[in-house]
Amino acid sequence: MSIKQKIIKIAKEAKDASRILPGVSAEVKNKTLISMADSLVKNARSLIRANKKDLYEAKKQGAISAFLDRLALNEKRIARMSESLKAIAALPDPVGKVIRSTRRPNGLLIKKVRVPIGVIAIVYEARPGVTSDCIGLCLKSGNAVILRAGKEAINSNLAIFKVLRRSLVKYKLPEAAVNLLKVTDRKAVDCLLGLKGFIDLVIPRGGESLVRLVEKKSRVPVIKHYKGICHIYVDSEANLSLARKVAFNAKCQRPGVCNAMETLLVHQGVAGTFLPVMIKDLQAAGVEIRGDMRVRKIAETVKKAKEKDWSTEYLDLILSVKVVSGLGGAIEHINRYGSGHSDAIITENRAKAMEFLNKVDSACVYVNASTRFTDGYEFGLGAEMGISTDKLHARGPMALEELTTYKYEIFGRGQVRT
Amino acid sequence: MSIKQKIIKIAKEAKDASRILPGVSAEVKNKTLISMADSLVKNARSLIRANKKDLYEAKKQGAISAFLDRLALNEKRIARMSESLKAIAALPDPVGKVIRSTRRPNGLLIKKVRVPIGVIAIVYEARPGVTSDCIGLCLKSGNAVILRAGKEAINSNLAIFKVLRRSLVKYKLPEAAVNLLKVTDRKAVDCLLGLKGFIDLVIPRGGESLVRLVEKKSRVPVIKHYKGICHIYVDSEANLSLARKVAFNAKCQRPGVCNAMETLLVHQGVAGTFLPVMIKDLQAAGVEIRGDMRVRKIAETVKKAKEKDWSTEYLDLILSVKVVSGLGGAIEHINRYGSGHSDAIITENRAKAMEFLNKVDSACVYVNASTRFTDGYEFGLGAEMGISTDKLHARGPMALEELTTYKYEIFGRGQVRT
Repeated sequence: MSIKQKIIKIAKEAKDASRILPGVSAEVKNKTLISMADSLVKNARSLIRANKKDLYEAKKQGAISAFLDRLALNEKRIARMSESLKAIAALPDPVGKVIRSTRRPNGLLIKKVRVPIGVIAIVYEARPGVTSDCIGLCLKSGNAVILRAGKEAINSNLAIFKVLRRSLVKYKLPEAAVNLLKVTDRKAVDCLLGLKGFIDLVIPRGGESLVRLVEKKSRVPVIKHYKGICHIYVDSEANLSLARKVAFNAKCQRPGVCNAMETLLVHQGVAGTFLPVMIKDLQAAGVEIRGDMRVRKIAETVKKAKEKDWSTEYLDLILSVKVVSGLGGAIEHINRYGSGHSDAIITENRAKAMEFLNKVDSACVYVNASTRFTDGYEFGLGAEMGISTDKLHARGPMALEELTTYKYEIFGRGQVRT
Repeated sequence: MSIKQKIIKIAKEAKDASRILPGVSAEVKNKTLISMADSLVKNARSLIRANKKDLYEAKKQGAISAFLDRLALNEKRIARMSESLKAIAALPDPVGKVIRSTRRPNGLLIKKVRVPIGVIAIVYEARPGVTSDCIGLCLKSGNAVILRAGKEAINSNLAIFKVLRRSLVKYKLPEAAVNLLKVTDRKAVDCLLGLKGFIDLVIPRGGESLVRLVEKKSRVPVIKHYKGICHIYVDSEANLSLARKVAFNAKCQRPGVCNAMETLLVHQGVAGTFLPVMIKDLQAAGVEIRGDMRVRKIAETVKKAKEKDWSTEYLDLILSVKVVSGLGGAIEHINRYGSGHSDAIITENRAKAMEFLNKVDSACVYVNASTRFTDGYEFGLGAEMGISTDKLHARGPMALEELTTYKYEIFGRGQVRT
């Protein structure tokens, strides 16, 4: 069989499995998840052994230490993966939830009911923890899953996958509900993206270039997250000490993630008092500041921001800063250069806060809080599958409910249309 | 300006308008809708005059009478368009509805709030009534709209559009909230489909070839409806007189629509008693029956169904009929050949009904009722924008709520992440 034929076979079997999963009870799914969680811990040694192969290869290729660190499995990390599966088991089952129920005048009972999406393909790069999270979330939401992981962690991922799949057999669930492609090259991705009819949704997880490639080539619907260009706007009526604390947190607490601030916008009325202290704080923490002309008049040490800076996701200790003439200018800047992820206003003026909430076209819009809270766990959704910057189907943190769709179930007694 | 430049200009202005619409109150939107409704009636004469041009052109091109009938405007039809706008005004405003609200342990208040999608492009074929319906639904749901109508009704559509746009001015709403392209050729469609960033959603309405073209070319997300291959499965435990009535209704009441039955599946245990009477009823109503071998053994007058028949949407007085060995076979047939639109089981056995509901992967699944009820109005949703056979974002009848997305509004008092 060619690679293509193999992948089509896997997708067909996943589709068949996806017909069975909607009818599986929460109890059986939860038992399976807990069995998976226990198996990970029991098999920690063999997982770590498989991971050593990946680490050896990566070192041979000259990978940097940050990469090796993300790739490495140890007992603590395996325990965390295991806990995450147990947390998913503890979450309510979204499948079968009645969203709306109507009795029509003709007696028809119409129920809008949450159901799984079907078969979900996940295309991601190295990081073994993603494998068990995705398997857990898809199983709980009743979806069959096809994982296509990167080659860097393939030995670790295959080992995790094999351990988890055994729990499916134990609880008589179809094995084809969970799949991991052994083939890691781009051809496998191309093939998956063409399998409309077998695969219902593709979720790419990884760098922007991977996501753009998937979106461009896919014939299957994609939910994605390009990048997080998050803004904080400090209004003329802001509590400036609160602004200082929140902006510092949004930039410095973990600069390498998508919900960290990349651009600070400051109202011209407070720029003169606010920026000198704020910039000093940030520079002391090692942040490089790139400002527009008005910022540089206030703080001479600041580098000049280029046009490109406003649309750059640094994921690093770099921040672009701009003075705006008011709320309107801030909103315009955010809608123009932002990525629709997370943006905040710092103000004590309720009307301005409401205008900001209304007009900023982003998944998560904050008043007086750090953008760093955009996260499934912080939002109280339990686990998450990533954060969507799309507007359709799922927006912001994607959790179990976002991995479902709905169908209408209509109960009659022979009603006909006249 | 080239056509492309003109369309980009319209899309940019629509995007700007879409920033204002989320903040417009239900009261202002409803007043505008009622003003639109009244204006249509007041301007009936000039609308009918514009329509005469389209009718003249269509006749010159040799259009068939069914087409001319769909194209024609008269006072009664204008009154119906007007009533539909008033009905939309009477529906609850989906915008601003709080879907979920959580107070987190750290004091953050997180609200999941319904918001408009943004700019919606609608690509459709001739039928002037669609114009006012789409404008009304998009306005009420807070979306800016760009209509690209077919050339056959362009004079009628432009006249309707001009009348409706005046009401926007009257209530100080941005005119660019509602747009109709004067250019009707395919180039205009191609251009719209590439305007990612300005247009948030494309809804094609029309024949399968138009829909497939839009889907193939679009860089903007599309919600669509390919076709309705609807099934009725008559189980061995069906009430056969109920089955006879429901199946007859699903095929014959209006055969040219997407929720009409195209294939009848009958359990082998009742085929011998049920099919002779059912086929007689249908043939008496002028229905051509195409059956598989087992059907033809029971009813000799039946034509042979080809493989292609099982996936054909006849939209006509033609029906394919198959005998299946049981519930499993029926479900398999539907999931294989169906279009995920509307499918029904006729049975008195509750367990079988539940299995059918669970396993048939369609937008609307019926027990003991005609598939003809799949319709926004019949479902109690008021007006509708069409029926989605997609699984993401919107499935089944698309009404006001389906024209919205959500955002998270987060209210803090200086919370930072630790």
